[in-house]
Amino acid sequence: MVKVGVFGANGRVGKLLIDDLKLSENISLSSVYVRNSLDFSIDPSVLVSTDMKSFLNACDIVIDFSLPEACEDLLEAAIKTPKPLVIGTTGLNAHQLNLLKQASENMPILYATNMSLGVALLNKLVHQASAALKGFDIEIVEMHHKHKKDAPSGTALTLAHSAASGRGLDLNKVRVSGRDGNIGERNSDEIAVMALRGGDIVGRHTVGFYNDGEFIELNHTATSRNTFSKGAIRAASWLAKKEAGLYSISDCLEI
Amino acid sequence: MVKVGVFGANGRVGKLLIDDLKLSENISLSSVYVRNSLDFSIDPSVLVSTDMKSFLNACDIVIDFSLPEACEDLLEAAIKTPKPLVIGTTGLNAHQLNLLKQASENMPILYATNMSLGVALLNKLVHQASAALKGFDIEIVEMHHKHKKDAPSGTALTLAHSAASGRGLDLNKVRVSGRDGNIGERNSDEIAVMALRGGDIVGRHTVGFYNDGEFIELNHTATSRNTFSKGAIRAASWLAKKEAGLYSISDCLEI
Amino acid sequence: MVKVGVFGANGRVGKLLIDDLKLSENISLSSVYVRNSLDFSIDPSVLVSTDMKSFLNACDIVIDFSLPEACEDLLEAAIKTPKPLVIGTTGLNAHQLNLLKQASENMPILYATNMSLGVALLNKLVHQASAALKGFDIEIVEMHHKHKKDAPSGTALTLAHSAASGRGLDLNKVRVSGRDGNIGERNSDEIAVMALRGGDIVGRHTVGFYNDGEFIELNHTATSRNTFSKGAIRAASWLAKKEAGLYSISDCLEI
Amino acid sequence: MVKVGVFGANGRVGKLLIDDLKLSENISLSSVYVRNSLDFSIDPSVLVSTDMKSFLNACDIVIDFSLPEACEDLLEAAIKTPKPLVIGTTGLNAHQLNLLKQASENMPILYATNMSLGVALLNKLVHQASAALKGFDIEIVEMHHKHKKDAPSGTALTLAHSAASGRGLDLNKVRVSGRDGNIGERNSDEIAVMALRGGDIVGRHTVGFYNDGEFIELNHTATSRNTFSKGAIRAASWLAKKEAGLYSISDCLEI
Repeated sequence: MVKVGVFGANGRVGKLLIDDLKLSENISLSSVYVRNSLDFSIDPSVLVSTDMKSFLNACDIVIDFSLPEACEDLLEAAIKTPKPLVIGTTGLNAHQLNLLKQASENMPILYATNMSLGVALLNKLVHQASAALKGFDIEIVEMHHKHKKDAPSGTALTLAHSAASGRGLDLNKVRVSGRDGNIGERNSDEIAVMALRGGDIVGRHTVGFYNDGEFIELNHTATSRNTFSKGAIRAASWLAKKEAGLYSISDCLEI
Repeated sequence: MVKVGVFGANGRVGKLLIDDLKLSENISLSSVYVRNSLDFSIDPSVLVSTDMKSFLNACDIVIDFSLPEACEDLLEAAIKTPKPLVIGTTGLNAHQLNLLKQASENMPILYATNMSLGVALLNKLVHQASAALKGFDIEIVEMHHKHKKDAPSGTALTLAHSAASGRGLDLNKVRVSGRDGNIGERNSDEIAVMALRGGDIVGRHTVGFYNDGEFIELNHTATSRNTFSKGAIRAASWLAKKEAGLYSISDCLEI
Repeated sequence: MVKVGVFGANGRVGKLLIDDLKLSENISLSSVYVRNSLDFSIDPSVLVSTDMKSFLNACDIVIDFSLPEACEDLLEAAIKTPKPLVIGTTGLNAHQLNLLKQASENMPILYATNMSLGVALLNKLVHQASAALKGFDIEIVEMHHKHKKDAPSGTALTLAHSAASGRGLDLNKVRVSGRDGNIGERNSDEIAVMALRGGDIVGRHTVGFYNDGEFIELNHTATSRNTFSKGAIRAASWLAKKEAGLYSISDCLEI
Repeated sequence: MVKVGVFGANGRVGKLLIDDLKLSENISLSSVYVRNSLDFSIDPSVLVSTDMKSFLNACDIVIDFSLPEACEDLLEAAIKTPKPLVIGTTGLNAHQLNLLKQASENMPILYATNMSLGVALLNKLVHQASAALKGFDIEIVEMHHKHKKDAPSGTALTLAHSAASGRGLDLNKVRVSGRDGNIGERNSDEIAVMALRGGDIVGRHTVGFYNDGEFIELNHTATSRNTFSKGAIRAASWLAKKEAGLYSISDCLEI
């Protein structure tokens, strides 16, 4: 049984982690770290601590979804008290990324801004398909809920990069984000990345490869907002047995 | 057995009509009209004629996919010799449309620029769904082969009009054809019509209605380039028994 | 502002209703009825009552997701103190259904075992499409999470009935639930209803109509487990202004 | 410019090859071999021959879609006059397969019973995804036209084998072809292969991997009956520059 410490327990993902750990097998919550106090009640068997050292001592591995400065504190503490870390905090600066690298010399650290195993795999498959299916036209469609303010999604752009790099193309020169009017025949190198918005869609991405006679469409759909917390828990189970080093989510794929 | 005369037999759809009639039940080819001579060989039981009157006399119903001026000749002849007509010629001018109307007083005429029964139905369903699902976000995606030069497709725009009119919206004010950058939250009235291009896709249209908790997607896919010829043959079987009047493809739906 | 009373507040849907009402516009929670005490904390402005009369007096409309006997108590109280009711409780017996009918003479009651507006609409569209597209082959695919123990889903069977009735077919004679081996050519009347299972899919249903040259696929997808609570809240907003009578969810569609 | 000889020109695929070669770049038709005479007219620049030797001399590479005995004659002739061969003939017996192997010592031969590049790729991607996404539930859906007499399709079974082998499962023990009644919770190892039938669908295969929080669906769709002829032409362009040896369609993927 792997004992998890949740760092950033009052955050949105922190709360999901605590819920999802209850439903997980072979891994469970042992401690949470909070700056002041926990916003909600928790099982009395879990250590709730504002002291980094006791928090770290009470767990086998830490999952962190916090803010850059808090993550920095965690990394500094872990350099003194090595502990496997799953880091999902976004927006780390150069100094913090450097700390992360340094810490990974003495403990296994998995760092990922998207904890979805499926998206990591899709990127690999898209890269292969793009290289193997030369001459097939590439079109990408993503859909997210109506509140999303930017387009296309970061994940769609990453997929488009995977597709472009599979053919040695520069995405900035071939990306299309809309079509209207007398556009003429499709340029064979162009890669459309179309963004749909509506309802409460968590995230849906389809990368299509179209040729005369046949096409392939590779789709990833997130079905709940806790894809990230579930991905982080799976990553923690995997990382717990690894040697020191810096890992990405695609290392979990083991292909 | 309904006997069909094909007008415009050397054209692209004309040839498909002749092939598809061979595979049809209860309806068969009896005559073809050509200006000069037929480009290909045909079963000797079929009358090949350059004379309008003998062409009309040899059939129960005419299917026309020709050019506007040729269609005008046909309409003038039919006014003298009434005969059910299925007209699929596009680009008719005001005078020709008027002739068509006049002719329909004495014979049944079905006039449609898209002979697909499925597209006609989809337009009805989209109109209803748009009215019934107020508050659901509407997004339309169409896909066609890489050689198509305009976007979005005429069919996609017609579907968007059906969706807009179901809510009393003016499509010109709410249509979106691409999304890129910091676009902000989705405007609840907007209707995206996104155009994908690639491979040899004959035509695929999806109209989606998205809400918190659920969504509906209504899709039409054309699977072969002879959707039009097959649609015209079905329309002819249906029209053969009708009274004089002007009909559209959606009348065949009988809902 | 419509004031809602939640009956069965400790139940699974009851809790979702309370959460979802916080996010709703023009409608809000005013009272909850519980047999003993509420399992969780709630905003102090909401009346928590074990007394039916004070519960009813504190709201404009009741949403009920409880058990048959509790629902029976509610109906008897409402016959004395008329109040619009949205009833989502399943498994009512003949006596209880009779009470419901009787109560609806003096107040508007909406009774539905599936509160999804989208599913109600899809049933109407499927019936129409089946009737309009005679000769098109009908195939239905549903998908649900891996824990679902029965197949096909009740919703899939209802959709199949809508499709069959659109053509005057008896579903029991034409339904197919699997294909394996040398099955021979497809019988034109058969309706396949195929059940997929996996992951945490809330519910996905696709009804397809396939012909030579074209096909139509009509899909409904539930994106969260609170489709029912959200549907019930929409139904309550709609019912609040209605006259006495018994309504179904499809009446909300207003088509 | 690669010069192609079509062996089996009167067959269904043979005719498609001749049409598709007209539209191809850097590769063109130079000769056809027929046992007696050609069923249709052909460009006079093409050599129509009943003599194997002159047929072979007039081309750089042969594409063969014929019958086993005819293919045997071709192989025996090629052993004497080496020539790159693309063999799409199905039903070869042990002796013929042996000849094929022997011939490939002196010339490049590509042998494939399904010439679709996309299907070859999909099999690779499915194998990887199955191995990488352990714990995800696997479900496969295939759809073909109403005239197909067996189910599931050979391609669907091959995909199911790719998925099963990615996890060390024996497909025969885990395959499910329908679900009806009180089936209980899904067994985590089972792999459903569901067959849909309708209209004129050429071939559509989807392999899905479903987990809590996310799923991936990998789809291949054939859009025309000449997927095979087009695949064979692509294979011929690729094979023309290769060394002696026996190749499969997945070698063309070059991944």
